[in-house]
Amino acid sequence: MNKKILIVGLGLIGGAYASKLSELGYQIYALDISKESLSYALNEKIIVEGRSEVDKEFIQEFDKIIFALYPSLLINWIYSYHSYFRKGTIFTDVSGVKKPVITSVNEIIKDDEVEFIPTHPMSGSEKEGVFNYKSVSFNKSNFIIVDNSNSSEAKQWVISLAEEMGFNNIKILSPSEHDEIIAYVSQLPHVLSSTLINSSDNKDISPYIGNSFKDLTRISDINSKMWSELFILNKDELIKKIEQFKRELDKMEEAIEKEDRNVLEGLLNNSTSKKRELK
Amino acid sequence: MNKKILIVGLGLIGGAYASKLSELGYQIYALDISKESLSYALNEKIIVEGRSEVDKEFIQEFDKIIFALYPSLLINWIYSYHSYFRKGTIFTDVSGVKKPVITSVNEIIKDDEVEFIPTHPMSGSEKEGVFNYKSVSFNKSNFIIVDNSNSSEAKQWVISLAEEMGFNNIKILSPSEHDEIIAYVSQLPHVLSSTLINSSDNKDISPYIGNSFKDLTRISDINSKMWSELFILNKDELIKKIEQFKRELDKMEEAIEKEDRNVLEGLLNNSTSKKRELK
Repeated sequence: MNKKILIVGLGLIGGAYASKLSELGYQIYALDISKESLSYALNEKIIVEGRSEVDKEFIQEFDKIIFALYPSLLINWIYSYHSYFRKGTIFTDVSGVKKPVITSVNEIIKDDEVEFIPTHPMSGSEKEGVFNYKSVSFNKSNFIIVDNSNSSEAKQWVISLAEEMGFNNIKILSPSEHDEIIAYVSQLPHVLSSTLINSSDNKDISPYIGNSFKDLTRISDINSKMWSELFILNKDELIKKIEQFKRELDKMEEAIEKEDRNVLEGLLNNSTSKKRELK
Repeated sequence: MNKKILIVGLGLIGGAYASKLSELGYQIYALDISKESLSYALNEKIIVEGRSEVDKEFIQEFDKIIFALYPSLLINWIYSYHSYFRKGTIFTDVSGVKKPVITSVNEIIKDDEVEFIPTHPMSGSEKEGVFNYKSVSFNKSNFIIVDNSNSSEAKQWVISLAEEMGFNNIKILSPSEHDEIIAYVSQLPHVLSSTLINSSDNKDISPYIGNSFKDLTRISDINSKMWSELFILNKDELIKKIEQFKRELDKMEEAIEKEDRNVLEGLLNNSTSKKRELK
């Protein structure tokens, strides 16, 4: 089995992948525009070589590539350089939205003899950049493979990688299922967390906050460019989830306004049992 | 200094206080209707004696009492038994709302020679009952003293207790300031967390959730009776905070709907800097 992998985009997730895969005995090469990121990664020994410019001969050395770029950059990269791929190359990604990415990438590579298998590791951190790669752990995290009519070779490759890296609950979803579920379990929480912290001037509240406020605002320290892109690319699903949330919030608010303790306890009992079912 | 303290209400917080104060060398006595809770606490050696019935002679043994009851139960208890207090008794509480509690308690004890110094330890857990007392840590938590025209003896007592127990940021607020800040930093997060988990049927989402969803829904496993009471008792402030949140959510939703990346990035940059200021 070929242990040589190219990672394109050496940010937080690219760096965390590089580190974990190197530890597992893979030879990890990286492509990133930032020389600083590359030399940091070399120093940390999480890659064996880094390049900051796209070179056809270099790209041709790989038949397995992981893209850890924002969706728009991934699509641009594929558009610009897909002709550099060696025949038979299998590549995957880590993006947080799938339908628009898959549609664009499939269209670009439709005449190439290469294969795209989209995946989404459900693991992150509120931090950014390769310098924070240690803040990400994949251990027992969820891993989603998004169905793109893939070959069993491609599926086998990403399943083995995910298993070796410590993910569990490796599941396959359709692009629409993925984007609908992710709007609820990942994008809506980010919208709510940032909205919570933005809904007050927060003047002098530091001495009064407890764990509940800390937990709910952890992800309000957010990569604004990446998440703006994810929210907009998955707009239709996300707006639906925000609307559902608002209807539910209105129920809670009305019960408080009316001092209707029965309804309020019912809503909170409901949330308790739903939370416990998830465990 | 008298090291003998009575804790009325041996639930999650009462139990955690009992444990920490016993560890610090205090003799902790407890009053609770549940014999099971009392015998558990005796077994764990976090109290030296427990009573399940209110007895005047027993109450008279103490000049320092900590009430760890829901607001309504605290008010009922004081109403029924305030004549049992020894003269000069100083008592405190742990309730999450202050204005209605202080108003009622002050009215009941206005002719008694006792003193109420309200406090709010900003530390909890999504669990309930004395059996989960180990899930609460006070270490470096915030501690609020609510001004009730107290004597320096009373203030000194609760400040020393809080310091010994490991709290830091011990602050004094007026009842209105407390209830306004708590509506935002504690009650609103609980409303949002429960609303988030209630806004979908959550069918089959377990394999797809990551840390963001887990963090935002941790407190959706909630003591429904206690929180319904807190929400309703602090209704005016809480409704204001929910309305502020809704206005802010509408801004975010509109930016997503219009695909206005500048506005969206602005909102997310704002949340990032606000979060970082809190650290």
